[in-house]
Parts: sequence; structure tokens; C-alpha cells
Amino acid sequence: MLGAIEAGGTKFVCAVGDELGGIGERIQIPTTIPEETIPRVIAFFSKHGVEAIGIGSFGPIDVNLDSETYGSITSTPKPGWRGYPFVQEIRKALGVPVGFNTDVNAAALGEATFGAAKGLDSCLYITVGTGIGAGAVVQGKLLQGLSHPEMGHILVRRHPEDHYKGKCPYHSDCLEGLAAGPAIEERWGAKGIELVSREEVWDLEGYYIAQALMQYILILSPKKIILGGGVMNQKQVFSYFQKYLQELLNDYVALPRLSDYIVSPGLGDDAGIIGSLLLARNAIQE
Amino acid sequence: MLGAIEAGGTKFVCAVGDELGGIGERIQIPTTIPEETIPRVIAFFSKHGVEAIGIGSFGPIDVNLDSETYGSITSTPKPGWRGYPFVQEIRKALGVPVGFNTDVNAAALGEATFGAAKGLDSCLYITVGTGIGAGAVVQGKLLQGLSHPEMGHILVRRHPEDHYKGKCPYHSDCLEGLAAGPAIEERWGAKGIELVSREEVWDLEGYYIAQALMQYILILSPKKIILGGGVMNQKQVFSYFQKYLQELLNDYVALPRLSDYIVSPGLGDDAGIIGSLLLARNAIQE
Repeated sequence: MLGAIEAGGTKFVCAVGDELGGIGERIQIPTTIPEETIPRVIAFFSKHGVEAIGIGSFGPIDVNLDSETYGSITSTPKPGWRGYPFVQEIRKALGVPVGFNTDVNAAALGEATFGAAKGLDSCLYITVGTGIGAGAVVQGKLLQGLSHPEMGHILVRRHPEDHYKGKCPYHSDCLEGLAAGPAIEERWGAKGIELVSREEVWDLEGYYIAQALMQYILILSPKKIILGGGVMNQKQVFSYFQKYLQELLNDYVALPRLSDYIVSPGLGDDAGIIGSLLLARNAIQE
Repeated sequence: MLGAIEAGGTKFVCAVGDELGGIGERIQIPTTIPEETIPRVIAFFSKHGVEAIGIGSFGPIDVNLDSETYGSITSTPKPGWRGYPFVQEIRKALGVPVGFNTDVNAAALGEATFGAAKGLDSCLYITVGTGIGAGAVVQGKLLQGLSHPEMGHILVRRHPEDHYKGKCPYHSDCLEGLAAGPAIEERWGAKGIELVSREEVWDLEGYYIAQALMQYILILSPKKIILGGGVMNQKQVFSYFQKYLQELLNDYVALPRLSDYIVSPGLGDDAGIIGSLLLARNAIQE
């Protein structure tokens, strides 16, 4: 049996399952401080006796195997988690191999193995929610270089009529600063869920998402794009970004029909936890 | 002995060499129409009796092995080359394995093997000249998905005082449309080489190149970035894009010192032809 941790900023999802993506028992644990959260995680897995653990974590994290701080959370503002040696602590407590990657890379792996990109050696998984993040499978491997990608913070061109200053503490009006859930809420004075009928909200959201898709397509050329996260549950955004993306690309690259190419997660909300099971499987194989 | 073709829009460079990057005889052949250029290419290699050929080609090209038109040049405006079955014709004439990729992916492979990114499993190679293109090695493999990347056409934010309309026939003011050689020449009314002492020219160039680097770093996280091409021979651009890139990133991601991280090609003008030799070697191994 394999163990999976989807470590988010507000909650940890822990589950046991198998390498075919089957999920057994699962629990949710609030993300408070490591001294509270992690013992509950360990208690859960101790009970089940897993062979390996896969962690898909909020970030930024250190995924560089040659680094002294490999396996830790790096520069998060979340109290108690900055520098937390996540892999080391889990390995010490449970004594099993531990796989470690970003939550979005885990989700990309899940979708490429069992979801909307099943059987493909290439896909991009994007989540638009409290933040914006993305992971990718490239030539069958999770995208990684110096570190993991930070695709949510790319630059976009501001809409000429959008005077909202942007919410990113680092870049103000990067993609996340203009298009994540908190930016929508601050710009329009209400949560996305309360703005469902306001077309201008989703038109503007589509304007920014289309630019991000343009950049990702030109740079990575993924075989499939999966767009998840709370904000993307507003399906009306899809027609807006499709329209803007067509205009931006202007037939420069040959793509499948956009409605087939850019889709919702095939695994729904389970992409991350299933991907984390696969990280556990990979940890055994390595 | 291996053969390499660096197929550019104005000239073909053909060379023989070995898998250690050693280059023997080399010739240049003007790129006119396939019926003129290709027989000269074939005559050169027939004389040497090579075991395999690697082609680093101008694009866009079809690099999808599952495609019926694999190995051809696709939508180029260059007369006679649209749809030209490049791999098929070379293989038919010479009867040896043929490797095929973009000129910039070949250069990235050359730099990762023998050049500025030697020994790294990850690098990005960018050329800024008549056009802007980039190739990358990701986890030891050339970046490829649905197709090869088209990184030169990403969106950038226009400088508020830059009123030049842009030169890209598809996107007007994408990166290539604003920052490639022909855009510099049209905007300022003189070739880059004649504008060496005009600081504002290179400041603006740095402004756009920095944005491109920001996007590439956040999306790909390369371990090394190599910036070549005719325009980048104006070394004064490096200090301008370093300044703008620092401002844009705002310490969000941990990077090596920028002057060590973003460098000129270690192989000089030979990155493409040496990379093409490696494509030939890979064609034998596959």
C-alpha cells in the first residue's frame, strides 16, 4: 500500500491507495503549524503501514536532489513552515522512501497517467484558485530544472480598462496578481461565486488566462492542457479564453480544436492526491 | 564519421565531424530553392561517406515521429520549402539514419554537451538575430511536446514610450516583432551595428529581453541560459537586461548571479553545427 499527502496551504489531504490510482481511506487535516499538523499525518500513515509516501506540496519547495536542503519548504510566508524539512521528517518518522514534488507537478503526473492526458508523455496542469500554479510532464518526466516551475507569476499585458493594481506581493500585476481568486474578489468587491452572472468578470478573467496559455503553449508545446482550481469551476471562462487565445495565436501554431486541447481535470479534485500516490511509487522505483 | 546540416534561412552549413564535437571539413551553401540547395548538400556528404546525418533546421518543422509529414518543413514563407520532406529526401539520397530538430534545439544540445552548459541536464538556448528562437534541454532531453517550442513569439509588455508597431506578420508586437534585428532596424532607421553608441536602443532591447527571460525562467527553470545570435553580439544589452530582470523577478526565485547564469554561447557560432552532429549520433543510437 502507498501513502499520499497533498499538502495545501489550508489543509492536508492524506490518503492510502495503490499505483493504479485507487484510493482507500483518506482524511483531511488543517494546515496550522508543523508541530500540530505533521504528528496527525504520521499517526494516520503509521496505522496503515505504507511502503512509501508521495508528497505533493504547496511551495516553493526544494526539489533539487543535490541540495543540502532538498525536501524542505523554502520561502513560504506561512508561519512555521519556512525551511521545514518535510521529506526528512516524514522519512524519519515512517522509515519508508518519500517522493516529493509540487502539488501541481503531482497533479500533472496524475492527469498524464490516469486523467485527461492519459497515455500522453506531455501535459500541462494549471490551477487557478487562491493562487495560480502549474506543473508539467515533458517527454514523460516532471518538469524540473534549477527548481520547479513558478508559472503563476508570469507577466501579462494589463487590459487597458483594468485599473486594479494587482495582488501579488512580489510582482503586483503578474498573472496571479491579476487573475487568482483573491484578485477577483478585491477587484470586484465580491467572491467569484457571487459574481457568476457578471459577464465582464469572466471576460476579463479569460483575457488574462488566454495570455498565460499563449505563453505556455509557445514555450512548452504541451500535448494537452488541463485547467483546474476553484476559479475554473466557472465554466463560462472557457469560452472567453478560447476567443482571446484564438486572436492572440492568430493561427501561428497548429493546435487541436481548443475545446479538446484545453480541458477540465479528468480526475476532478483527485488529480493531486492520485499524482502523489504516483510520486510514492516512483520513490520506490528510484 | 558523422554529418551535420545547420539549415538556415539564408545559408546551409554542412560539416563532417565526430560525436566529441570535432569538426572536419565544412562548407556553406546558399539557401535558394530545394532543387538547387539540396543536391549540393548531398554531393558534399556523398564524398565523405557519413554514417548518419543530423539536421538542425529553420522552422517551423514537423518533429512529431507519429506524424505522416514527420521530417518536413511546414509553414515557412520561404519559396519552395513549404512542405519540403527534408528528412525523407536526405535519407533517400544517402541511405543513412537522419536526426532532425530545430536549429535552436540543436544549439541547446550542443551547448549542454560541450558548451556553456556542459554537464548540465537542463539549459535554454536563445538566439536573437533576424528572428528570435529558443531551444531547451529539459531533464536531459530536447524540449518537445505537441511540436517544438516557438518561444520567440511570446507576448511582452510594450514599453510605454515605444510606439513602434512591431514587425511580426502574425502577432505584430510579440517579442520577435519588437526585439529581433529587423524590428531594431525599422524602429531606429539603421542597423543595430550602426547604433552601437545609442544607449536608448540597447536599454529598450534589454527591457524586452528581460521580460522574455522572466517568462522562460518561471516556466522552464533552466539551469543555464545561453543567449546568442547577431543582436546579442552587442554585449551592452547584457547589463540592461540584467537590471530589468532583477526588477521584474524581485527576488521571487533563487537564481545564481545573473552574469553567471545568463551567458554567451560557449561554442560561439558552432553551437548549431556541433548540436547537429549530436543529432546524427542520436539518430544512430535510436
